[in-house]
Amino acid sequence: MADANRSALRLLREGHEDRVLGLLRTHGALSRSDLAQATGLSRTALWSIVSRLISIGAVVESDKIDEPQHDDTAAQKRGKGRPPTYLTLNPASGLAIGIDIGHRRIHASIANAAHDIIAATSEACTQSAPWRDRVHQALALVDTLTASHHISLDALEGVGVGVIGPVAESGTVPQSRAGDRAELVHTLVTEHLNVPIFVDNNTRLGALAEAIWGGGRGTENVLYLRLSYGVGGGLVLGGHLFSGAFGAAGEFGHISVEPDGPACGCGGRGCLERYIALPELLKNAGVATVDGLIERLESGDDRIARIVRDAGTRLGRVIAAAANVVNPEVVVVGGELAAAGEALLGPARDAVETYSHGQVRRRLSVVSAELGDEGPALGGVALVLKRSTLLAGYPITAHEPEAVSASPQVADSDTGTA
Amino acid sequence: MADANRSALRLLREGHEDRVLGLLRTHGALSRSDLAQATGLSRTALWSIVSRLISIGAVVESDKIDEPQHDDTAAQKRGKGRPPTYLTLNPASGLAIGIDIGHRRIHASIANAAHDIIAATSEACTQSAPWRDRVHQALALVDTLTASHHISLDALEGVGVGVIGPVAESGTVPQSRAGDRAELVHTLVTEHLNVPIFVDNNTRLGALAEAIWGGGRGTENVLYLRLSYGVGGGLVLGGHLFSGAFGAAGEFGHISVEPDGPACGCGGRGCLERYIALPELLKNAGVATVDGLIERLESGDDRIARIVRDAGTRLGRVIAAAANVVNPEVVVVGGELAAAGEALLGPARDAVETYSHGQVRRRLSVVSAELGDEGPALGGVALVLKRSTLLAGYPITAHEPEAVSASPQVADSDTGTA
Repeated sequence: MADANRSALRLLREGHEDRVLGLLRTHGALSRSDLAQATGLSRTALWSIVSRLISIGAVVESDKIDEPQHDDTAAQKRGKGRPPTYLTLNPASGLAIGIDIGHRRIHASIANAAHDIIAATSEACTQSAPWRDRVHQALALVDTLTASHHISLDALEGVGVGVIGPVAESGTVPQSRAGDRAELVHTLVTEHLNVPIFVDNNTRLGALAEAIWGGGRGTENVLYLRLSYGVGGGLVLGGHLFSGAFGAAGEFGHISVEPDGPACGCGGRGCLERYIALPELLKNAGVATVDGLIERLESGDDRIARIVRDAGTRLGRVIAAAANVVNPEVVVVGGELAAAGEALLGPARDAVETYSHGQVRRRLSVVSAELGDEGPALGGVALVLKRSTLLAGYPITAHEPEAVSASPQVADSDTGTA
Repeated sequence: MADANRSALRLLREGHEDRVLGLLRTHGALSRSDLAQATGLSRTALWSIVSRLISIGAVVESDKIDEPQHDDTAAQKRGKGRPPTYLTLNPASGLAIGIDIGHRRIHASIANAAHDIIAATSEACTQSAPWRDRVHQALALVDTLTASHHISLDALEGVGVGVIGPVAESGTVPQSRAGDRAELVHTLVTEHLNVPIFVDNNTRLGALAEAIWGGGRGTENVLYLRLSYGVGGGLVLGGHLFSGAFGAAGEFGHISVEPDGPACGCGGRGCLERYIALPELLKNAGVATVDGLIERLESGDDRIARIVRDAGTRLGRVIAAAANVVNPEVVVVGGELAAAGEALLGPARDAVETYSHGQVRRRLSVVSAELGDEGPALGGVALVLKRSTLLAGYPITAHEPEAVSASPQVADSDTGTA
């Protein structure tokens, strides 16, 4: 029950409020009427939501579009009789840091509450380095970034960190190195920055970023597949990351495409990953790198074209199956192999057309990822900004002043002197 | 965007509050400490949630377990200095009606806020009758039920109605008979009962009921497959029905199990439904009914055993694929064919074992449905009780008194003078 409960945490109090905040992030200043029109909500409902967002300090009012109100107290006494006021995100409500600790590179991004990336950088890391060292390297990178851009972290709301491997929320998957890894990252980053820390799988953070800023922007139900040395994925449902009951949602690479296919390391058989993960695909193609593969493809090599086409067809069959399950609006395909472009996505779309339900495929787009390597760090930023909204959702009452920071949404990742 | 927005509606403000209400529904009176322990929430968070639930009238306090407070005003002035008070659902907070208009039978159930079914009935209907007539028959059935049980509908909070065919929320799937159907049902039931009406696909309502009271009870991430004349399904994610971006989530019957299989009416190829839907399966087995099939199975007919085993294997391959996508806790298998029991579910479990990711299958149960034909009507009840919780979530402010009933959550199905 505790695990099931954790999965419920993620859906908490999200929806209309996030929608309104999202529109303010995307469009800047908007009037209540603009928001009512854009959300399709009734005036009554929209007014109520906006009042709440103002009362918790997430949104401020201003009379003119170009002079947003920076003063919290002024926002409190809202001018009830003046209709043409505009709403903006409260620019004083804080910064978010996103970090991605990948196999070969560490990325860091810093954003303000309006989702503007105000600084970003990356550097190579050693794949064989212990995780403790990688985390220290990432934190040093953040320090360098803030120093070089003169960024004060006084208003830091949280840090979202992407790591390799499966991460159930709060590391609830036992006997898993990734669980320990998430915990280690959590501990070390907390020691250094002392704000709420959210750790998740970096592919999943990539999915969130693509859904907000990349190939899935403007939609709320997105599947993301990352075709690389393995085949991973993530789901954004109703605008939010969905991790499944135990953190293992989005295992698209381990959907079987050949019932009698070879055994897979996951314990399955005929998994998609066994056919289209880079090591298998490149070996099969007799080339050393993806660049080499694409070169041969562009030179008109029939055998290579067939290999890529077959990979696309198998990919499309898996996308069709997954789309029949959750009926998304967009499927975003990223990772190194996505560089093959239409040679891969064309056959994938054909297979989706052949193997998905008419109602499902009729309004489904299969597109390339747009964010590249920066995706997961941006997803870390998004995680913080989304969680911060959640944190603001339950104004903590004064029953236990010493526990003000132990708000329900960070109970799992229990740090948080915000 | 409007469609995407609708899908976000469903996730609104759900989570902790529902969890607390759910525990009170399941366990009756509980103290705050009981609730804190059961939810894993901090005292601070739990206290805040309970305060809100009391303030909106969803929960009442009482000093003794066996004498729950029935008086709302007494609940308002909560005795702050007295620790051992108990909390219960507010029994005065209303009734919910669930109706299922199936191919051959109409079911109706009436429940109180504590989810107790206080009356239920069903009667046969004519499959060829126009939908208008079926709805009138269903409403007459409700009238008979309330009269015979002396139930006043003064406190009726809403009606959840299950219909055949795909239903996007608010009938957003155009060119679909079911869209018109949902609208027709909505109009007729509103004329008769004048409360918020929620219409959804009956298989999906069956999924919700199984997740709450049936094979998936106690969990929050449940896949439900209904094996009957067609193969339908539904998803409960994070404790709530998930319909996908356009109302077509859960098309498990149209996941392809044979890439070179026969074309399907859905436009796909080799769909599971083409192999295990009753018409195909019974024809293949040379028997007229499911009872006949099971009789032959129990008599030790090898050919029939193989047919059922093959059906189970294909079913299991689809379950494995779907589970790899959303990582559920439980998969519930219902519908007439589920009567084949272990002869079907055994091979299905074996296939799940062979074709799903280790992390996914390790904590996955595949079980039989428990609710039978009453499921969808119970799901209708659940839909109302869950939506009522949502309705209570945003106290409507007094800006537009004439629009008090047009609360955000019924904006789609826009009726609702509650």
